[in-house]
Amino acid sequence: MIRPEESAITQAVIDRFAQTPDPRLKAIVTHLTRSLHAFVQEVEPTFDEWLSAIGFLTDVGRMCSGSRQEFILLSDTLGVSMLVDAINHRQAGGATESTVLGPFFVDTAPTAPDGADISGGVAGEPLYVDVTISDLQGQPIAGASVDVWQCDSDGFYDVQQPDLAEHFLRARLTSGPDGKVRFWSILPTAYPIPDDGPVGQMLKATGRHPWRPAHLHFRISAQGHSALVTHLFVRGSAYLDSDAVFGVKDTLICDFPRHPPGQAPNGRTLDRPWRSLQHAFVLDGI
Amino acid sequence: MIRPEESAITQAVIDRFAQTPDPRLKAIVTHLTRSLHAFVQEVEPTFDEWLSAIGFLTDVGRMCSGSRQEFILLSDTLGVSMLVDAINHRQAGGATESTVLGPFFVDTAPTAPDGADISGGVAGEPLYVDVTISDLQGQPIAGASVDVWQCDSDGFYDVQQPDLAEHFLRARLTSGPDGKVRFWSILPTAYPIPDDGPVGQMLKATGRHPWRPAHLHFRISAQGHSALVTHLFVRGSAYLDSDAVFGVKDTLICDFPRHPPGQAPNGRTLDRPWRSLQHAFVLDGI
Repeated sequence: MIRPEESAITQAVIDRFAQTPDPRLKAIVTHLTRSLHAFVQEVEPTFDEWLSAIGFLTDVGRMCSGSRQEFILLSDTLGVSMLVDAINHRQAGGATESTVLGPFFVDTAPTAPDGADISGGVAGEPLYVDVTISDLQGQPIAGASVDVWQCDSDGFYDVQQPDLAEHFLRARLTSGPDGKVRFWSILPTAYPIPDDGPVGQMLKATGRHPWRPAHLHFRISAQGHSALVTHLFVRGSAYLDSDAVFGVKDTLICDFPRHPPGQAPNGRTLDRPWRSLQHAFVLDGI
Repeated sequence: MIRPEESAITQAVIDRFAQTPDPRLKAIVTHLTRSLHAFVQEVEPTFDEWLSAIGFLTDVGRMCSGSRQEFILLSDTLGVSMLVDAINHRQAGGATESTVLGPFFVDTAPTAPDGADISGGVAGEPLYVDVTISDLQGQPIAGASVDVWQCDSDGFYDVQQPDLAEHFLRARLTSGPDGKVRFWSILPTAYPIPDDGPVGQMLKATGRHPWRPAHLHFRISAQGHSALVTHLFVRGSAYLDSDAVFGVKDTLICDFPRHPPGQAPNGRTLDRPWRSLQHAFVLDGI
């Protein structure tokens, strides 16, 4: 039961927002007030619990830096990022499904030509990626801008290195007239999201693990089409059924077949086994 | 309408919290997930709006320091602090009503004897405070610990001074055998909450002002009684009907009568007008 003097507080806050000039902002703060107050009514926090919540949010904020976005991690681990993604991709019938951007996207990735090796020479099982970008009618899209980024064999992204001189395992490519983008890289591995901060403490306290299954990130944009932010996951990777950020969708799990040493695409000859990934991305209209 | 694939995300997050060892924490994170996801469903944020929310929370966290608690300000200005306070003081029939602690409480205030001048010599209209602490049966409570703190004539608390050498307008007194606490101070003034940070931006964007009506803070604790955290507001002060943190309750608005120069309590003679405040605090049982 919500007592009259308590619902009066909620109404007073909503009334106070009544003069918000921007109607969208007014709607958001009104919903926020109602939702936040309803949550407090459900949970009935003690003063100390309220103070703990203040302390947790403060710690999350303090953890944020140029190379660490703890609030995005919090949003990811609470499934909010995936929900926002789902809400913004309701009309995607036939198009490739999207998933979270994650905290490691960099808008200034180095450009790379078709067939380039983007591994930066780091150790790992060689991987040849051959993907096609097309529209809903199956027509290849030339000139699409394709950002790709992934972790190394230890599970770290380039931007997590303390003294990063230049980017690696990250590139911006452009699709050819056949809608194709090809590059050499290495097989990504499963990795834990950064868990040495308050989000990691939250995961521990709730009996959750911080791991994500192995995946490559893609961000694909082309004129006349909605930008696509997604992953391709490695079939058979650990944690596909318990991704810490709820990012896995069945249609995004791909085979990465293993090939014996010898002749490889792009004129390469390899003295050890290598993997390949083929995938057909389909972009929605705008 | 909530689509099945979207409610599946909410359920997946709740299921992931199922192994939380502490039952209270499990209830909180489950309610939080449901509430947060329902809010996102109502508001349907765009990706950019989600990113703005992440940026806002990050800014609030970055603003926090040893002398500034921006998340408490956010909780205060959204009425959450008052709601938590109300929920935790439902059984207070007959006892003095509580209100927010605010961000300026200090647990190490200097002790002061009965009748002390706590003004630290700062300019302002002299104020003589004479309050009684009693229980629900009207019996005076001796030995109650009474913290009092207030702003100066410019609206600032001592802890807001850049180079604070010693506390002023802040003291810890102890009630005498008659339950009384008496001290000299100055009349507090209305003041804006710190509005040079993201909470101030939120207030501006929503057409709200940052002002609080003039008040003195009290925190009273005594063995066998619930601690009381409250304010006494100056009747006639501006902003009594629009306190930025929703802290005003009618029963906490007091007269501060003005007296002509001359004989004043505690053996003082004043060459200018002065004010007085009398109030009877009633503490609840535990």
